[in-house]
Amino acid sequence: NSGELARLLAEFGVEVARIAVEGDDEGVLAARIAELCATHELVIATGGLGPTLDDITREAAARAANVELVEDERARTDLLAWFERRGAPMPQLNLRQIRIPRGSELVRNPVGTAPGFALEIGRALFVSLPGPPHEMRALWQDSVRARVAARFAQPLGRARLYLFGMSESRFAEIAGTRMKRGADPEIGVTASDGRLSVLVTARGGGAGSAAELDARARAAADELARELEPHVYSRDEGRLEHLVARELAARGVKIAVAESCTGGLLAGALTSVPGISASFERGWIVYADLAKQSELGVAPALLAQHGAVSSEVAAALARGAAERSGAALALSTTGIAGPSGGSAEKPVGTVWFGVHWRGSTRTHLLRFPPGDRERVRRFATNAALHLGLTALREAGDSRS
Amino acid sequence: NSGELARLLAEFGVEVARIAVEGDDEGVLAARIAELCATHELVIATGGLGPTLDDITREAAARAANVELVEDERARTDLLAWFERRGAPMPQLNLRQIRIPRGSELVRNPVGTAPGFALEIGRALFVSLPGPPHEMRALWQDSVRARVAARFAQPLGRARLYLFGMSESRFAEIAGTRMKRGADPEIGVTASDGRLSVLVTARGGGAGSAAELDARARAAADELARELEPHVYSRDEGRLEHLVARELAARGVKIAVAESCTGGLLAGALTSVPGISASFERGWIVYADLAKQSELGVAPALLAQHGAVSSEVAAALARGAAERSGAALALSTTGIAGPSGGSAEKPVGTVWFGVHWRGSTRTHLLRFPPGDRERVRRFATNAALHLGLTALREAGDSRS
Repeated sequence: NSGELARLLAEFGVEVARIAVEGDDEGVLAARIAELCATHELVIATGGLGPTLDDITREAAARAANVELVEDERARTDLLAWFERRGAPMPQLNLRQIRIPRGSELVRNPVGTAPGFALEIGRALFVSLPGPPHEMRALWQDSVRARVAARFAQPLGRARLYLFGMSESRFAEIAGTRMKRGADPEIGVTASDGRLSVLVTARGGGAGSAAELDARARAAADELARELEPHVYSRDEGRLEHLVARELAARGVKIAVAESCTGGLLAGALTSVPGISASFERGWIVYADLAKQSELGVAPALLAQHGAVSSEVAAALARGAAERSGAALALSTTGIAGPSGGSAEKPVGTVWFGVHWRGSTRTHLLRFPPGDRERVRRFATNAALHLGLTALREAGDSRS
Repeated sequence: NSGELARLLAEFGVEVARIAVEGDDEGVLAARIAELCATHELVIATGGLGPTLDDITREAAARAANVELVEDERARTDLLAWFERRGAPMPQLNLRQIRIPRGSELVRNPVGTAPGFALEIGRALFVSLPGPPHEMRALWQDSVRARVAARFAQPLGRARLYLFGMSESRFAEIAGTRMKRGADPEIGVTASDGRLSVLVTARGGGAGSAAELDARARAAADELARELEPHVYSRDEGRLEHLVARELAARGVKIAVAESCTGGLLAGALTSVPGISASFERGWIVYADLAKQSELGVAPALLAQHGAVSSEVAAALARGAAERSGAALALSTTGIAGPSGGSAEKPVGTVWFGVHWRGSTRTHLLRFPPGDRERVRRFATNAALHLGLTALREAGDSRS
């Protein structure tokens, strides 16, 4: 959770000075909480709020604050309602979860049995949140975020860029000293499966309104974007599947997919977008040659002559998916994810993509570094989405 | 990476005493490395080995060890070969990556440009590894693991259990004080998307051979398994898709999938298994009613009468997938992943599963807690795999 929390706190310009991980010893944990709360302004703990005996955050925080644990009535009501909704009896152990340090404020948990709590210890605000990431995020969004922002937010401006198809080291060469710690604006970058997320932060030494700082960050992002064309694909959303969904909805057109090497990940990414059912009706995973033939009409001769991993078959898959579904856009993938199956001519990591748009089909070849099957598959999924996004944008915004 | 490293180190019984996260200031980092190396036996750093100016782990480690940075010839050869394989010119900045502290041993990187290094600082072995998780893992497996094991491994015995369909708090009630820190054997559990991974560790206070400790851990796991039946689905592999693949291969039969609410994730999980192409040939994502009809022959009357999220449609999807593919086993999912689309009768989180095995079809209903679309989808994917695994095992091992 620590990376996620650092990201959430960065939203207000709150810098994480220290991340500590502690074991399950109550005395040690209490001493560490007391120490951290004496030397920092905000201390957030995650985990250790479960019902079992090795869940000791409540006890340790109470000891650090030198108060006792008391039962919270609202927590009790929430907990009983949680089990009642499930029609399950409440294990007695769960009653441990409604005891919080005296003087603390309950942080209710709408998605689990473990409530959090917040209390003043030393010079710090101490916040205890449950460990499961989706619970931690839910409590943060529901109530902790606003409280932390009100007390700790620093003025800063931010702008983002999202890039595809550029290496991190090539990016760093271009960004140069603008990536140095302390630069203002400062540029940071993170890579994931072919995408780069760039964050430009303007601080202005604490001076300047939020609007001025935002404008400075945007200006720096604009300058950088000019140096990075044509790799920039978005300024507000990094998830390619969401951008594709947005373009499909704006044009009122549908998409279909025919997947071989990505094996369902491309459809899985698209269907992660709420509301996608308006634009996505069907997809095929055609792993075997015979499936490519019988489901999507790929000619046996094409497969025999060029092999399944070829421009010709990628094109036939995309065309077949478009024709069979009636979708305006169809994307296909066929490649060698590894670890075996590669050859000198088509090494592991070779992937052909087909993009069919309104009656015409293009294909693209990418070679990913071999070695990690899942990485090749995730990278290929993003590459297919990026190709689809590019095709939609090139098509302009006519609804003809 | 810290969670992953803690897990990797736990393999030898090495306990992580402290996890610290540091910023990009070279002096601060050097002081912290020196401090940690004075008070611990093993210090592992990840990240900060990139080519850019904010990558300062090399400099900080050299300063902490009071040595200078020197170019490593083998690192230079590896780096040049890396770029040559890609046919790309090497940015000058990358040369920063081949300078490592004098006296350290290079840890070669087969999957990236950043080599790691290991050197003695204070009373500790200091190991520096690259930050990208797949690079960190590769270097760990290739060379760091063996070195750390040889020097630090503690004798202990381990046994595992994997469970499906039981809550973590119900598990904790059953395991009771065996989960207390310091219990021997000690039981630990982690939950993910419907699965529980249970680890039983026997330490014997440092006495006892590895074989004896293993036997004690296994005996404790056996006892626990008897209390947990029928939830235990494996003792050696938690990934349901790998177990399904294993059973399919053992029986020489094929699987097909028809996905609505999981939208490709079920096929994506199956195709993550290397070699699955022997058992998986095709799958359908049939998101729209029309797709369910035209691809898999679901009768329009069924859809009109019962709705897409129903036992009848789940059965028809599984049957259609089996008939169209000729696979012995077919799995289907149809449900409401949310956030919208729910009703009083079928709330968000309602998922029907169809399991077709050699001519007969069964259906199952599960209701997941609503709220997180991706969580419902991942949970449903595991549930479908678990149902498939159960069907294969109930069928016995005849190859008829």
